[in-house]
Amino acid sequence: MKPTPTRITVACCQLAPRIGDLEHNRRQALAAIRAAARQGAQVVVLPELVQSGYVFIDKAEALSLAETAHGETLRQWSALATELDIVIVGGFCERTERDELYNSAALIDADGVQAVYRKTHLWNDEKRLFTPGNCPPPVVETRFGRIAVMICYDLEFPEWVRLPALAGAELLCAPVNWPDAPRPVGERPAEVVRVQANASVNRLYIAACDRSGTERGVDWVGGSVIVDANGYPLAGPLHDAPAEHTLLIARLDLGEARDKRISALNHVHQDRQPALYD
Amino acid sequence: MKPTPTRITVACCQLAPRIGDLEHNRRQALAAIRAAARQGAQVVVLPELVQSGYVFIDKAEALSLAETAHGETLRQWSALATELDIVIVGGFCERTERDELYNSAALIDADGVQAVYRKTHLWNDEKRLFTPGNCPPPVVETRFGRIAVMICYDLEFPEWVRLPALAGAELLCAPVNWPDAPRPVGERPAEVVRVQANASVNRLYIAACDRSGTERGVDWVGGSVIVDANGYPLAGPLHDAPAEHTLLIARLDLGEARDKRISALNHVHQDRQPALYD
Repeated sequence: MKPTPTRITVACCQLAPRIGDLEHNRRQALAAIRAAARQGAQVVVLPELVQSGYVFIDKAEALSLAETAHGETLRQWSALATELDIVIVGGFCERTERDELYNSAALIDADGVQAVYRKTHLWNDEKRLFTPGNCPPPVVETRFGRIAVMICYDLEFPEWVRLPALAGAELLCAPVNWPDAPRPVGERPAEVVRVQANASVNRLYIAACDRSGTERGVDWVGGSVIVDANGYPLAGPLHDAPAEHTLLIARLDLGEARDKRISALNHVHQDRQPALYD
Repeated sequence: MKPTPTRITVACCQLAPRIGDLEHNRRQALAAIRAAARQGAQVVVLPELVQSGYVFIDKAEALSLAETAHGETLRQWSALATELDIVIVGGFCERTERDELYNSAALIDADGVQAVYRKTHLWNDEKRLFTPGNCPPPVVETRFGRIAVMICYDLEFPEWVRLPALAGAELLCAPVNWPDAPRPVGERPAEVVRVQANASVNRLYIAACDRSGTERGVDWVGGSVIVDANGYPLAGPLHDAPAEHTLLIARLDLGEARDKRISALNHVHQDRQPALYD
């Protein structure tokens, strides 16, 4: 295995999937991944459920669009990851042999699917459709650093972000679909603020890839962001992005995420007092 | 006991204590509390170590400025809390009978000192001076809601904020001394961002009262802020405040903090999966 570089280039491809149009969504994702790689991206993050769309009418519709981890979408992403020698993290609607549904995300590198993470903290109607995952976020040692995966509402549980951070993740890739909500004028969306805080209290990079495009009446923040280990955005947050498709790209120094010291005597992880947290 | 009102007025008094000048610091705090109460504040938050100053040369100096919970500063604050029928939360350098030092904060109401919290997560040189506290943040049922207390760097541990939030705190009062550090132009300080995130993932109000004034070469963010249960500032964050003393005031609806639902099927605390967090 080649040594992991310290500096890597990460992209978020903010896209507008069309609910139910698998062919369109796959084509769109492949084109976006290629475009990101052309700009030098070595890790490419796609939105949550980018393969199927999000606003399902019912479980039957979700099932009809779901795929296994051996399905066509992940097969295509794997082929492209091999061709381009990149890492791809993207969300898909996962069906098991027993017709259970998960809101999942795959981490794929040149050697194929390395991890499938199943969203644990389900948002609203997802509770009617999906089985919650019960495994912690994976941390995968890739050619481009130690990369963790979680999905959207998972990010609102700092305990969940701690797990891969303590396990050595340097970059957390989070496919999201952030439904838009009112906020005070001039304020950055709270979803982005929480990503920043999660990054800073763990000194890890976070790339959150949101979606765009109104879907069955639902609008999205469209707030994709790549945040550094101090909690400040390196790229984005996008907002009111005029285009349906926006490519966000940033260069990370993973050395920053490997150094958890924040003063002569402070270390964001060693300063924890877990015995007092129960 | 009178019923707790739903709407309360909270103030942060951002002050510049003078290291070692107890008389000045006490006078300044009393004047600021009175000024806040005149503007209707029912809960008044003061900075960390507002009684002593922060940048001690050594433990001997800190000991010489420290007081017990029965000392003059808390006596004055108690008298004023009784006179004005308010709650005061402020930081002081605490000495025990055995000459242990704590970086503490008191919560005082009309009936006297209700809680003394000792900072658990110590920042940098504090580790050379203070004994870390080992008790969770108190949650006090006051006339003006259920109020929790923690101090500065404690806020960088979301696990710590969870404890009083799960115990029913509606408002977290945090005396802080945020040392200033470089940040990208136009970015809100990460300290403030973390306060916002802590508030939103718990749906509680947070009033963080910072200090101002250069002390022995150390500058401060001066970023006092009062954040609502959605994570958005109601007042502040202050920055580059021209005056040494700035009063921040906000009206809170505690009903917001009592309602942890964020969608038809989501609840910020019930959605936690603690069995998976270890």
